[in-house]
Amino acid sequence: MSEQFYTEITPAGFGIAIKQKEVLFSQQSEFQKVEIIDTNSTLGKILTLDGLMMTTEGDEYFYHEMIAHIPMMNHKCPKSVLVIGGGDGGTVREVLKHSTVEKVVLCEIDGVVIDACKKYLPAIAGKLSDSRVEILVKDAIEYIKDKENEFDVVLIDSTDPMGPGEGLFTEEFYTNVKKSLKKGGIVCAQSESPVVNKEEIKKMYNLLKKVFPITSTFTSPIPTYPGGYWAWAFCSINVEPLSYIDEKRCEEITKTCKIYNKEYHSARFALPNFLKEIL
Amino acid sequence: MSEQFYTEITPAGFGIAIKQKEVLFSQQSEFQKVEIIDTNSTLGKILTLDGLMMTTEGDEYFYHEMIAHIPMMNHKCPKSVLVIGGGDGGTVREVLKHSTVEKVVLCEIDGVVIDACKKYLPAIAGKLSDSRVEILVKDAIEYIKDKENEFDVVLIDSTDPMGPGEGLFTEEFYTNVKKSLKKGGIVCAQSESPVVNKEEIKKMYNLLKKVFPITSTFTSPIPTYPGGYWAWAFCSINVEPLSYIDEKRCEEITKTCKIYNKEYHSARFALPNFLKEIL
Repeated sequence: MSEQFYTEITPAGFGIAIKQKEVLFSQQSEFQKVEIIDTNSTLGKILTLDGLMMTTEGDEYFYHEMIAHIPMMNHKCPKSVLVIGGGDGGTVREVLKHSTVEKVVLCEIDGVVIDACKKYLPAIAGKLSDSRVEILVKDAIEYIKDKENEFDVVLIDSTDPMGPGEGLFTEEFYTNVKKSLKKGGIVCAQSESPVVNKEEIKKMYNLLKKVFPITSTFTSPIPTYPGGYWAWAFCSINVEPLSYIDEKRCEEITKTCKIYNKEYHSARFALPNFLKEIL
Repeated sequence: MSEQFYTEITPAGFGIAIKQKEVLFSQQSEFQKVEIIDTNSTLGKILTLDGLMMTTEGDEYFYHEMIAHIPMMNHKCPKSVLVIGGGDGGTVREVLKHSTVEKVVLCEIDGVVIDACKKYLPAIAGKLSDSRVEILVKDAIEYIKDKENEFDVVLIDSTDPMGPGEGLFTEEFYTNVKKSLKKGGIVCAQSESPVVNKEEIKKMYNLLKKVFPITSTFTSPIPTYPGGYWAWAFCSINVEPLSYIDEKRCEEITKTCKIYNKEYHSARFALPNFLKEIL
């Protein structure tokens, strides 16, 4: 190929290829290699960490609308929200659409990610400057240890279980996250690709089920993630998924979304047989 | 890359890359270049036509279970089924799971596709030898012209609207398909990627809506298709989608499927906002 391509091939032996224009930013941070690449594609600019796709301007809403609105809409009045990881700011942007929200804490270990996204991906990171947002450049594993009864919703918007995100996939961490929840609190965590990360999913849900009385799964397509199909965990102490959807908030937020609506929300929890078997 | 890759880059500027082992079969037929490639991936062997992914051993069920079971299960007693295109045999295999089926006509224009799949992809094409299957190596546009009141379900398992499949995306063709339906008949057609084929989808549904009083859309992920996310049209004269699901058949068939189940079926018709806008 005479053209240059960004390629990401999973251990399953297949993956994505994107026409590459130029690398706009490349820095080895304390934790990982952070890159912003401009592409010759409808995906626009993309963020990668250690050569793994994190987000693209073109399809980021497939991910961010799901991790934010499915748990947020299932909470009766989410005021205090913690986003772990998510340094690109996309999840925070979606969370802030909920009029109930008074405070969002973003706990991201790598300040280089935040700065690069603010500069190169303003449509995704722009809301990080909102006055309701507190940004902590910190290890969430340490941060969460002494938190009790603080958050209505905790969103674990992490990288994969390999690399800097590894400690975010442990029983100890999940136990601390549970402790940080207010009454009626909900946790949502990205839980990898049902197509190429079957073993990782199994391991993760075994831990989550040990910690949370209610652990459910929802899925949705993501064009640029491995397998084109992604899963998230919905966990809580006593709130069943789909037990509540705030009609008024739902209607308002649907108007601002490219994916999310009430029917699409409900449909997320219908899983294919092969995934049910894994779980 | 020192390894060899099969790549398929869409006009959107991104696509799939698969570790390639060897080309097992390559022939320029009267209509298209037919290739079977063995891969170094969990996808196993793949079929491509004119360099476009048609099916893989590893993820074929994501497509075939949807195009077959969503319409079939919505029909009270599908006895006579026509599959247009679909020379790999995967759709026929799924259709035959329905105990009501007495006859399946496969009308595929390219005999080279059928022969290659029988030889190299027996897990997909194996049921083409079932006694209920009649294989016609014919242009479906001609075949359908004089058919009236013949089929309970017609499945248009075509290639893209460019190339040999082009004539399968016209008002005249759809009108003839409608005429071929028995009372209560249902048509299901693959309708491209909502992520990368937005214009094609718009055009196709405009035609379908002219012809069929009931035209609906369902979607599901497909790892190896452009955008990882696919749409199908559900059309009929008087049968609404989800107006009926045969409980007993559904239970039986779910046991044989990797994806399909009743809840997953119902959830398919909840569409993301951006696709609703296109339609």
